Amino acid sequence: MADQDAVPPVAGGPPAVPSLRWDEPPEGPVLVLLDQTRLPAEEVELVCTDVPALVQAIRTLAVRGAPLLGIAGAYGVALAAARGYDVDESAELLAHARPTAVNLGYGVRRAARAYRDAVKEGADQKQAAAAALAEARALHQEESEASARMAEHGLALLGELQPGGGHRILTHCNTGALVSAGDGTALAVARAVHRAGELRRLWVGETRPLLQGARLTAYEAARSGMAYTLLIDNAAGSVFAAGEVDVVLIGADRIAADGSVANKVGSYPLAVLARYHHVPFIVVAPTTTVDLETPDGASIEVEQRPGHEVTEFVAPSVPVAGAEPGAGMPVAPLGTQAYNPAFDVTPPDLVTAIVTESGVLSPVKGAGLAELCARSRQVTIS
Amino acid sequence: MADQDAVPPVAGGPPAVPSLRWDEPPEGPVLVLLDQTRLPAEEVELVCTDVPALVQAIRTLAVRGAPLLGIAGAYGVALAAARGYDVDESAELLAHARPTAVNLGYGVRRAARAYRDAVKEGADQKQAAAAALAEARALHQEESEASARMAEHGLALLGELQPGGGHRILTHCNTGALVSAGDGTALAVARAVHRAGELRRLWVGETRPLLQGARLTAYEAARSGMAYTLLIDNAAGSVFAAGEVDVVLIGADRIAADGSVANKVGSYPLAVLARYHHVPFIVVAPTTTVDLETPDGASIEVEQRPGHEVTEFVAPSVPVAGAEPGAGMPVAPLGTQAYNPAFDVTPPDLVTAIVTESGVLSPVKGAGLAELCARSRQVTIS
Repeated sequence: MADQDAVPPVAGGPPAVPSLRWDEPPEGPVLVLLDQTRLPAEEVELVCTDVPALVQAIRTLAVRGAPLLGIAGAYGVALAAARGYDVDESAELLAHARPTAVNLGYGVRRAARAYRDAVKEGADQKQAAAAALAEARALHQEESEASARMAEHGLALLGELQPGGGHRILTHCNTGALVSAGDGTALAVARAVHRAGELRRLWVGETRPLLQGARLTAYEAARSGMAYTLLIDNAAGSVFAAGEVDVVLIGADRIAADGSVANKVGSYPLAVLARYHHVPFIVVAPTTTVDLETPDGASIEVEQRPGHEVTEFVAPSVPVAGAEPGAGMPVAPLGTQAYNPAFDVTPPDLVTAIVTESGVLSPVKGAGLAELCARSRQVTIS
Repeated sequence: MADQDAVPPVAGGPPAVPSLRWDEPPEGPVLVLLDQTRLPAEEVELVCTDVPALVQAIRTLAVRGAPLLGIAGAYGVALAAARGYDVDESAELLAHARPTAVNLGYGVRRAARAYRDAVKEGADQKQAAAAALAEARALHQEESEASARMAEHGLALLGELQPGGGHRILTHCNTGALVSAGDGTALAVARAVHRAGELRRLWVGETRPLLQGARLTAYEAARSGMAYTLLIDNAAGSVFAAGEVDVVLIGADRIAADGSVANKVGSYPLAVLARYHHVPFIVVAPTTTVDLETPDGASIEVEQRPGHEVTEFVAPSVPVAGAEPGAGMPVAPLGTQAYNPAFDVTPPDLVTAIVTESGVLSPVKGAGLAELCARSRQVTIS
């Protein structure tokens, strides 16, 4: 089950509440999430005491973003172990909470393997649970370090592409501190550019239907003091046509072995617009988002979400727990069917570069991607 | 001033309420508008007894769509004349209520000229007002006939492009009976395809920020019994990539002399996507939307609308009269600046064809456009 603790919003500065934290109050261990569905109206923590509560939080996007889903999945396994639930069953539930972000399954598998390895080596339940938690914490730390390295690589890449700074960056969805440990992925690069005094403008696509750009990226940009302008996703065309975009920076939910990038729906149209306007289209993601077992874009399972996210409007301050289908305000005639894919897939030939913690891949080719992943895994192991 | 008469919504069939009608109750002549801001929740009539009320209705989009704005402008001049207001001043107010749709100024000028010509010829105030009203009615009738002819030409063009029917049409914004006399422009073609039994699917882009696709096109499509599916504007990329779009049909707010098309923001990204996927991109508009005095796309004034349309959500059932800026639900952090152009401009080389009442122009070249307009004006004069 999940409880909700309200924390008063803070007027400025970095998010006052971490997107995810492990806590051990006297009642037993819990995973505490910043409920992203209620931002920017309220900073509310969601306390998960078991895996079904976490699965629900994942499905309703209270916790979201590829790297953070991996971290949440790993802590979820640790939570199940620490609370004495069936770890295999919990891992199975968690891994299938949402289909597209590869990190979720990755994080779950890492923590579950750590647990099983400990058991095999003769650990008791408590020790094995500690091993799962240690693995979750290790992943958390790795993603934080990966974020910092992606920011460095991305900043350097932008400096090469456009010496002299003054970057006008267009981004989509939310890829900041709310999606990962550290500063995130694409937005971590934008923040590094801002810190270096080289950000002229951050164009923030609102990201229908759930408005992660308007609600979350604008929230992070405002708190960081970045010069940002919000736009409906459709207005990106006008900004490109006016020559006001120097680079597109997005994250990824899964990168296939051939370099195809699944990301929030709307990324592919931006890639096509970027190509048409000769603007670099750059994907920023840790190598944990690369799935070498998925050969190409056509093999990526794209999550289809319910049509009521499109046909009804739910205010961000309405608690998700009360927002049953039909609870929103209708914006289309009753009975309207909506097509609502959560992601789209951008083919590698439209991607100028993929920035990972292990380096930058450009042009985007399958062989180079496998090499980057191998390098990253060496770094992790060493 | 404007009064509001509620009419109970009808469950099916064509819109129960015409988008615009002239009425002469005992209290004096009025222009009655279907308040499009309240659709699909309610069918409410807005009764305009003077020009400031009509200007307000135009600015808030209670009445909208290029051809209908022209008709409304002409009736507005007739209303001012019939009620004894200053016709020149009223015409000036009306012509500048919104900048981009060329039809508005065209309709206003036609009715005002009819009024002035009558005065010059010795007519008294009442006779001159009758002349302005007759001109508005003539324009109304012409646009209705133009709609029928565009539907015929468009149906024939689609038959040539894809013999055998089964058309999957993607459209944007609202271009149906709500934007014109008759069945409208692009949606009139889709409706003709539907009547001919050749419509496989109508993909309806929701059209942020004001959701004319979700609210109005879905409303018209549902009442016409068309097979339609709503999507967020961003999901168009996924539908193109899946090979599920045979043709894009949109309307226009102003077509420059070189064939550049100003239309609802989001049209240009669809044109770029259509080109990338080798899908025909067809603009349907009467020749009254062609402005031979605007040489090219760069010369078209694009209306910039307030940022709160993006940063706040206003439910369609909230009466516009009460929806002051700040009355909506915030969806972005307070203080967020939004860029909110109402239109974008598609260059002629991305437009496969322009369908007018006088025929089809393809490829889109300035000389051909001028010729079509000349032909249309002959038809009107003859």
